[in-house]
Amino acid sequence: MLDQAAEAVKRVTCIGAGPIGGGWAAHFLAQGYRVTSYLHAQSEYDALMRLLENAWTSLEEIGLAEGASMDNFSWSTDLAEACEQAEFIQESVPEILELKQGLYQTLGDIVDPRVVIASSTSGLSMTDIQTRCSTPERTVVAHPFNPPYLLPLVEMIGGEQTSPQTVEWTQKFYQAAGKAPLVMKKEIPGFIATRLQEAIWREALHMVANGEATVEQIDQAVVNGPGPRWALMGPCEIFHVGGGEGGMAYCLDQFGPALKLPWTRLVAPELTEELRNARVDGCVEMTAGQDFAALSRKMNDGLVEIAKMKRKTQS
Amino acid sequence: MLDQAAEAVKRVTCIGAGPIGGGWAAHFLAQGYRVTSYLHAQSEYDALMRLLENAWTSLEEIGLAEGASMDNFSWSTDLAEACEQAEFIQESVPEILELKQGLYQTLGDIVDPRVVIASSTSGLSMTDIQTRCSTPERTVVAHPFNPPYLLPLVEMIGGEQTSPQTVEWTQKFYQAAGKAPLVMKKEIPGFIATRLQEAIWREALHMVANGEATVEQIDQAVVNGPGPRWALMGPCEIFHVGGGEGGMAYCLDQFGPALKLPWTRLVAPELTEELRNARVDGCVEMTAGQDFAALSRKMNDGLVEIAKMKRKTQS
Repeated sequence: MLDQAAEAVKRVTCIGAGPIGGGWAAHFLAQGYRVTSYLHAQSEYDALMRLLENAWTSLEEIGLAEGASMDNFSWSTDLAEACEQAEFIQESVPEILELKQGLYQTLGDIVDPRVVIASSTSGLSMTDIQTRCSTPERTVVAHPFNPPYLLPLVEMIGGEQTSPQTVEWTQKFYQAAGKAPLVMKKEIPGFIATRLQEAIWREALHMVANGEATVEQIDQAVVNGPGPRWALMGPCEIFHVGGGEGGMAYCLDQFGPALKLPWTRLVAPELTEELRNARVDGCVEMTAGQDFAALSRKMNDGLVEIAKMKRKTQS
Repeated sequence: MLDQAAEAVKRVTCIGAGPIGGGWAAHFLAQGYRVTSYLHAQSEYDALMRLLENAWTSLEEIGLAEGASMDNFSWSTDLAEACEQAEFIQESVPEILELKQGLYQTLGDIVDPRVVIASSTSGLSMTDIQTRCSTPERTVVAHPFNPPYLLPLVEMIGGEQTSPQTVEWTQKFYQAAGKAPLVMKKEIPGFIATRLQEAIWREALHMVANGEATVEQIDQAVVNGPGPRWALMGPCEIFHVGGGEGGMAYCLDQFGPALKLPWTRLVAPELTEELRNARVDGCVEMTAGQDFAALSRKMNDGLVEIAKMKRKTQS
């Protein structure tokens, strides 16, 4: 409820019972919330319960919040009933614009206007989704990564009619709910993480199409190469550490010319002084207080743990 | 030595004492080899020893091979002396074509022609490097990921004058030495892993240049989103699992149209029937014998371990 503290929410409704909707339900349950799932049809029930039980095993292993219990779960195939007591709604229905528009029209009328409705959409914009909603100011995109109970990212952005207060409140809500919300600056196709992922995916498709690499080689290249680093640090911090004492500045000055080389089919932007400085300053701020030795140790210690974990799970 | 079994090698010479050359020395020492490093100048000695000591702490934590000891390390600033007893040479000098060409000319004359000389180059082709070498048939590219003692990938490819026997023997050598060699089909700029990494890197640069994301947001998007998955599975297997029971075939048929969307600045190839089948067949072969439930469990269990590790190291 927008007139309450975001940390005070106790009841969440998850609309949709597929991998994403079910995954969200598991996450909120593990965080100690009361969760109601809306199922489009009763036939979805068995698959949802299998998903919840599988997820619960993983979540117990990581550690549940105080009071977390599968007993706090309920479900309904009646949309109004499922939303009746909701203090927050996470919507995860199929990615069909008309379907979402119709749903937001209905929700806009039947749900208390103080309740935020967040969409898990991975590609549609809230500006488009909210067009037929009578109370669009409390609707926002909140895109998780699968499975939502194991990966913390939530990419957030409002539509043209969303109120800034909704975005702020929802960011606080997710922080309290154990997620890592990322409020985007612009509505861009694919958001941030999917754009980066899609760049890899498309380069990989080109390589297979041209007979430059097999599917298996692409996967081996990632898993045995840069992949473990990406679990620990993003691509900017990795280069910042890779640059040694000189950090990102050294890296850009050294590898800047490589941006002209055909090392991927994606043409790089011009490395202007402004862009160079934005990258360098961003890295310096992001890693404030940690010198090269500390960052390097963080990376190495993480890679050691991943190497040990792989040895254990693959033996 | 090409006339010996690749598994019989006991003595390795690492040419170059920077992060890559030193990292290779640490790796081979931990695998139980006798290692000699060639230092361009004695002034490089202190930094190299710090690198080896740091690496050794990590390597002990993962587990050393039988007989592995820092006592098996020696060094020299005399190239001929450093290479005298080598049964395998790993070259990691700076990425300057002329420098490497001159070095391979010298090595080609002074090193027993049965000894393979592998280059850590991350961008140059062996066809170019070996032009002035009198014995080019035993030279090959073997590009590691940094740090070479924690990330197993070695991307391999010969130049035009490299013998197929050299590539085969060297692949076996790396397998025996605890690495994950990947023999490429073609000499392509950036090889495979760097091309994929560069695609992400360039898309990220575009986003920063256009004010669509900050440096910190890009890193958060990767670390809290797709990053942990890439430590466990490559992008193809991830989609194969993400497609549920339907696997990669379902994913391509479902998300194929998204290849036309501007989800990255990289234009995708045409998803022809042939390309679709290459991806599907590749995934089916690569995961042979593991059904969706097994693959999904492998991913989830790995993500649970990464989540636990991060909680431990970040607290």
